[in-house]
Amino acid sequence: MPMNSTAYELLACIRERQPLVHHLTNWVTIYDCAQVVKSLGASPVMAHAREEVTDMAQIASALVLNIGTLTIELVEAMKLAAEAAGQKGIPVILDVCGAGATPLRDQKVLELLDSRRVSIIKGNASEIARVAGARVKTKGVDASEVESDLEELARGLAIERKATVVVTGAQDLVTDGHRFFRVNNGHAIMTAVVGTGCMATSVIGTFAAVEPDLCVAATAALAVYGVAAEVAAQKEIGPSAFKQSLFDSLYSLDQETIEARQSIER
Amino acid sequence: MPMNSTAYELLACIRERQPLVHHLTNWVTIYDCAQVVKSLGASPVMAHAREEVTDMAQIASALVLNIGTLTIELVEAMKLAAEAAGQKGIPVILDVCGAGATPLRDQKVLELLDSRRVSIIKGNASEIARVAGARVKTKGVDASEVESDLEELARGLAIERKATVVVTGAQDLVTDGHRFFRVNNGHAIMTAVVGTGCMATSVIGTFAAVEPDLCVAATAALAVYGVAAEVAAQKEIGPSAFKQSLFDSLYSLDQETIEARQSIER
Amino acid sequence: MPMNSTAYELLACIRERQPLVHHLTNWVTIYDCAQVVKSLGASPVMAHAREEVTDMAQIASALVLNIGTLTIELVEAMKLAAEAAGQKGIPVILDVCGAGATPLRDQKVLELLDSRRVSIIKGNASEIARVAGARVKTKGVDASEVESDLEELARGLAIERKATVVVTGAQDLVTDGHRFFRVNNGHAIMTAVVGTGCMATSVIGTFAAVEPDLCVAATAALAVYGVAAEVAAQKEIGPSAFKQSLFDSLYSLDQETIEARQSIER
Repeated sequence: MPMNSTAYELLACIRERQPLVHHLTNWVTIYDCAQVVKSLGASPVMAHAREEVTDMAQIASALVLNIGTLTIELVEAMKLAAEAAGQKGIPVILDVCGAGATPLRDQKVLELLDSRRVSIIKGNASEIARVAGARVKTKGVDASEVESDLEELARGLAIERKATVVVTGAQDLVTDGHRFFRVNNGHAIMTAVVGTGCMATSVIGTFAAVEPDLCVAATAALAVYGVAAEVAAQKEIGPSAFKQSLFDSLYSLDQETIEARQSIER
Repeated sequence: MPMNSTAYELLACIRERQPLVHHLTNWVTIYDCAQVVKSLGASPVMAHAREEVTDMAQIASALVLNIGTLTIELVEAMKLAAEAAGQKGIPVILDVCGAGATPLRDQKVLELLDSRRVSIIKGNASEIARVAGARVKTKGVDASEVESDLEELARGLAIERKATVVVTGAQDLVTDGHRFFRVNNGHAIMTAVVGTGCMATSVIGTFAAVEPDLCVAATAALAVYGVAAEVAAQKEIGPSAFKQSLFDSLYSLDQETIEARQSIER
Repeated sequence: MPMNSTAYELLACIRERQPLVHHLTNWVTIYDCAQVVKSLGASPVMAHAREEVTDMAQIASALVLNIGTLTIELVEAMKLAAEAAGQKGIPVILDVCGAGATPLRDQKVLELLDSRRVSIIKGNASEIARVAGARVKTKGVDASEVESDLEELARGLAIERKATVVVTGAQDLVTDGHRFFRVNNGHAIMTAVVGTGCMATSVIGTFAAVEPDLCVAATAALAVYGVAAEVAAQKEIGPSAFKQSLFDSLYSLDQETIEARQSIER
């Protein structure tokens, strides 16, 4: 992996610096998003009041936005938070959760992207295709099939939005429109657990809090998260037991395991 | 069980079709409601913005409403969602969580029922008794004792509201006012776990997404959920470990186990 | 421990009376707060609609407030709930979660305290120091270092606010401004789990529901919770597995274990 810092080095940096990762997220997986950040050794804070999101940005090192259970008021608070984060120069990661499912989600994703403050756009194949303008039907918040050339869609979106684009799936794709990274880590059981996608976004946000090259940060994040999932899946079979092990696997992940298992292509 | 489809056949159908089950639910057990639907092999979506609930109904196969942490705004969104679901012809399942605890809950349950869009009314004995007009004191969201004839109350409510009524307890009762089904599956430890009642409602909603006879759907749902609980309780003793096993038991439940254990009376 | 009731006696009383503990809390740990109350044998209810919080106070035995994900509307509902609780004479426990992180949190904590209805003020060292007026920087919702004399700050706050003050940490401190209790129970892994602080507040609220001497209630609560954590930590190593064991340890905690392990100083 020709990156300045290895995935493990970034994890070690998170554990040392314990960056504050501010979230405006959904009410379904809010606990898991907080706990996954905590399991990495960082400090999560969930705060969505319009009256405090700007102040919270002053002490945060990254901002994670997730529209899973959006309302108009919540998106307005997200815009305020993104504006403050942009002014402070911390990365803004947007999970376009459920894009394509309803006109409201499509419209609010566009509004957030038009604010020009989003640094990383993250979704599954159907969500990213939708945001990139492809014709695609999304069924709720789970991934659907996309017929277009996903790589080309992601590249175009990254260039149009001057952002890093992350497409999660059996193989994850990370691009800033010029460079392409692929991560093969992870486990099929993750699709049977509610929240693994949201948690991936929070992990990316945590790595982005310590690594300014956002392609490198997102790629390392997905490799570490995927390796932790593989380790967790060795021990357990049921999806719920797996989720618990995933947290604990992340918490105790060491250099040797990461370097033996990480599978990153460019 | 003289039903056209067996409980296992309906579960197999859910696993094959993966129906989208739309929820407007409470903030306490929202994750568990999503995960229980996912564990059955279906696809949960939690969305409560007034501006999107009507659109979400267009892609959903069932709508689950739960007033556990109601606000006036949330109930207004529930009414919009129920109206759209009714027009599309998908079933609407209402968990009357905490009915009787406060005047607000009683009033909002009545408003939701008066919309004439609720297909299945589900609660514990004290909640259903309250909704049926009996004098009963509810202590918060946990079940209280009811002195009236529960069966008669449920029958009357079903006929009055032209709905299927589900009363959960040590023995679950399902009636459309004419037919009565009783399910003996389940385990006492469920009462020590927050969310087992809400999850039962989501399971019923998921079965109703694939079986138009709502008495049959609710009965099969409670049998499958109860069998999964029995299997989970074999392995674990603590309530929190039990909850995790319950999800995983549902996820891997097979025909043999269901048919050996299901206990349905009519 | 020179208290009228021992910690175990109070736990036995909770299990027998099953008091209703009303919460207006945050959306991150709302499930865990409910489950910890349930694991103690009591009955949690989470209800935040302005239109029902006053009614809920009529059937509750304690009120727990937590500003972790505050909004202005939620704090207004908290004031109504606290007013009703005060009039009924049930204890009001306030977790000043994240005090010092933003001006909004500081302002809203002061407004809640100025209502003169808060019976127990609970936070970590940096939060309590902030509320007591010391200069302290809070980083989000995790504990920061405090340079002032914590004991003196807690004493002053207790006297000023005519409340019991609880400062959680490696050693917990409980004072009403005159008496001081210290609890040495607990385990370091708790700091790696999101929600252990919020859960402590809910446990204190549950003990305060059965013991009118709030210093005694809070001290016993922290001893029981800490002993349960020690027992859970014997079995598990990862923080997420630990959290599950913590619930189940609380659920099955017996007199012998509590009395052998509790470590209370005065």
